[in-house]
Amino acid sequence: MSLAPYIPGEQPRDAGIVKLNTNENPYPPSPKVIEALKSADWERLRLYPDPACTALREAIAKQRHVDAVQVFAGNGSDEVLAFAFGAFFAGRSDSCGPLLFPDITYSFYPVYANLWDIPFKEAPLRGDFSIDTGDYREAENGVIFPNPNAPTGIAVPVREITDIAGLCAARNKVLIVDEAYQAFGAESVVPFINENPGLLTVHTLSKSASLAGLRVGFAIGRRHLIEALERIRDSFNSYTVDALAQIAAAAAVLDGEYYDEINKKVIKTRIRVEAELAALGFSCLPSSANFIFTKPPPYIGAPRLSALLREKGVLVRYFDKPRVREYLRVSIGRDCDMDRFLEICAYAVNTINN
Amino acid sequence: MSLAPYIPGEQPRDAGIVKLNTNENPYPPSPKVIEALKSADWERLRLYPDPACTALREAIAKQRHVDAVQVFAGNGSDEVLAFAFGAFFAGRSDSCGPLLFPDITYSFYPVYANLWDIPFKEAPLRGDFSIDTGDYREAENGVIFPNPNAPTGIAVPVREITDIAGLCAARNKVLIVDEAYQAFGAESVVPFINENPGLLTVHTLSKSASLAGLRVGFAIGRRHLIEALERIRDSFNSYTVDALAQIAAAAAVLDGEYYDEINKKVIKTRIRVEAELAALGFSCLPSSANFIFTKPPPYIGAPRLSALLREKGVLVRYFDKPRVREYLRVSIGRDCDMDRFLEICAYAVNTINN
Repeated sequence: MSLAPYIPGEQPRDAGIVKLNTNENPYPPSPKVIEALKSADWERLRLYPDPACTALREAIAKQRHVDAVQVFAGNGSDEVLAFAFGAFFAGRSDSCGPLLFPDITYSFYPVYANLWDIPFKEAPLRGDFSIDTGDYREAENGVIFPNPNAPTGIAVPVREITDIAGLCAARNKVLIVDEAYQAFGAESVVPFINENPGLLTVHTLSKSASLAGLRVGFAIGRRHLIEALERIRDSFNSYTVDALAQIAAAAAVLDGEYYDEINKKVIKTRIRVEAELAALGFSCLPSSANFIFTKPPPYIGAPRLSALLREKGVLVRYFDKPRVREYLRVSIGRDCDMDRFLEICAYAVNTINN
Repeated sequence: MSLAPYIPGEQPRDAGIVKLNTNENPYPPSPKVIEALKSADWERLRLYPDPACTALREAIAKQRHVDAVQVFAGNGSDEVLAFAFGAFFAGRSDSCGPLLFPDITYSFYPVYANLWDIPFKEAPLRGDFSIDTGDYREAENGVIFPNPNAPTGIAVPVREITDIAGLCAARNKVLIVDEAYQAFGAESVVPFINENPGLLTVHTLSKSASLAGLRVGFAIGRRHLIEALERIRDSFNSYTVDALAQIAAAAAVLDGEYYDEINKKVIKTRIRVEAELAALGFSCLPSSANFIFTKPPPYIGAPRLSALLREKGVLVRYFDKPRVREYLRVSIGRDCDMDRFLEICAYAVNTINN
C-alpha cells in the first residue's frame, strides 16, 4: 500500500517554546475535569472500558439536545473522521463519482481518501478563500468540509450547509461537517441533524475543551449513520476510548460554563491580534476559529517570518502549498504569548527593508 | 462496505458479577502506575501528546533489550493489529496467495482481513488443538497466530516459530506473533527479532499489565516493519495513544517486579483450578495463558454450564463455533472468584443427571 501520511504540527518538548502551531487551547482543562480524574477509581483500570462510552455519550447528548444513540465517540476526531471515510465514502461502485472537499482545507482529508482508496476532487475556494457551496450541489459520493474551514478560519452560513445536506440525502449520500473549531465563532448544524438524514457532524475535545492530550472526539447524526460508524469501529478496535478519557471527557462536556468563559477569552484575544496585525500591514482572513490565517506584507513574506519566529522561539504553521504560500496559520495563545508573537512581527516590519 | 464486526466479551456494569469472560487481570495495576498518574501534570492535557510515544517506547526498549526504533506503540494491541493487517497483508497483488492463520484463534483476525479486503485461509489446528506450524511453511502472503494461541491457551515452541519466520522472510512476507498472553507461560520470540527481518511481535498491556482500561499495545520488529506501521498510523490518526496512557504504560513496563509477582499468582491459581476441574471430570487443554479452555463432562455440556454460571453471576466465554462448542474459556480470577466458579461446576456435576 502506498501512502502519503498526514504531517501534524510538531510537538516540541522544550517548555520555553511559544507554541502557536497546532491550535491547542492556551487555557487548562476545566477544574471539574481534573477533579474527575483525581477521583477516578484507578484500580478499575485493570478492566476494559465501556466500549459504548455510555456516560460520555449521554453527557454529549444532554448538552447538544440529541439522543445518546445519535452520538458516536472515538479516539480523537481524527479517528472519527478515519472511520467516517471508511463508513460513508469507501467501497462505492466505480461508476460513482468522487468525494468532494475544498482545495484548501484540513490536509488529513486527502490522506484518509488515499487510505481507503476513495477517488476525490478538490473544489477550489473562491478568490476570498470562502467555501463556494454551489460546488457541492451535484455531489455523487458525499462531501466533507470543516465549519469554520481550516486553515482559513472562514465560516459557512448554516442555511447553505443544510441546503447541501438535503441534496446529499436525496442522492443517498453523506455530508460531513467537521465542527472542530465551531465553538470559536461559527454556528453549529447539530440542531438540524434530525431533519437531515445525510448530515453528520464531527467534533473534538482537543480545541475548545482544552483536552488535546486526551484524544476524544465524537460525531452526531441520525441513528443509521452512527450505526455505520460503530460497524467500522468494531471491525477495527472494540475499545478505542480509554476509561480515563471517558471520565474526563464527560466532565468536560458537562462544564459548558467554564469553557464558554475561556473560549470567549480566546475570541477576545483573536480580535485584538487581528487589529494589531492590521496596524502592522498584515492582512487576516475573517476568522471564526481559534487561529488566524494571516498574510505578512510581501517584503517580509510568510516563509521568512515563519523562520524568524522559530528562531525566536515562537512556532506557527506554514503550508508550502499553492494559493496559501503567502500565509501563516497562527493559533491564538494567551495574551502574553500573542504579545511575544506581535513583537516579533513588529520587529520584522521595522528591520526588513521595504 | 459489508462488515461482520468482532464481538467482544460483554462488560457488565454490575460490580457484583464475577467476570471471567475477557481475560482481564484480577489484580490491580502496579502502585507505581497509580503514582505516575496521580503526579501527572493534568494541565498539560491541553497539549497534544507526544505522537511518537518516545518515553513509553524507550521504557519498552529497555525492558525488552531492543532499540526504541524497533518499537511501535498503539491504542491497544487491537489497533496495532489493525494497522499491521493494513501494513503487511493488504493491497497485495491478486496473484498472491491468502494470509494464513489457525481455524481456531483470536476471532478478530478474520474481521481485520475483511476490513482490509485481504483473502485468508484458516489452517486447522491438530486434533489436540495445537498449532501445526507445518501448515505455514508455504505462506504466500504472511502468517499470524498468537503464542500462546487463544482461546486454547496452547503455546508454540520458539524453534518452530523462528523456522516459519525464516521461511516468511525468504519470501519477503511477514510473520506476526501475537504475544498477548505470553507472560503467563510461553516463551517470547522478541530475542529473535534482530535476526528475523520478517518477524513482528505484538503485545498488550491489557492482560499481564492489568491495564485493559487504558488501551495500550505495542509491536516489536526490525526498523522497516515499524516504519510501515508508522505510515499506516499517520494516514489514520496522528496521535493514537493519549498522554495519560503513555505515562501510565511507561510506569507499568518498568515495574516488571510487581507484575512478575501478580502474574505468578495467576499461574498458581490456574494450576490449582486445572487440578480441581480434572477432579470434577472436566478436561482442560494445557494452558500457558491467563485462562483455561475447558470441556465440561458431556452430560452437562458447555452451553448449559455457561447459562448456569451466568444465572449465578459468573460470566465465562462460550464460542458457538465448529470444534469448540464443547468448551468454555474461563479467565483466571482471584482465588475467591475461582472458588465461586468451581463451586458452581461442582453443583452442576452433582445435580445434573449423568
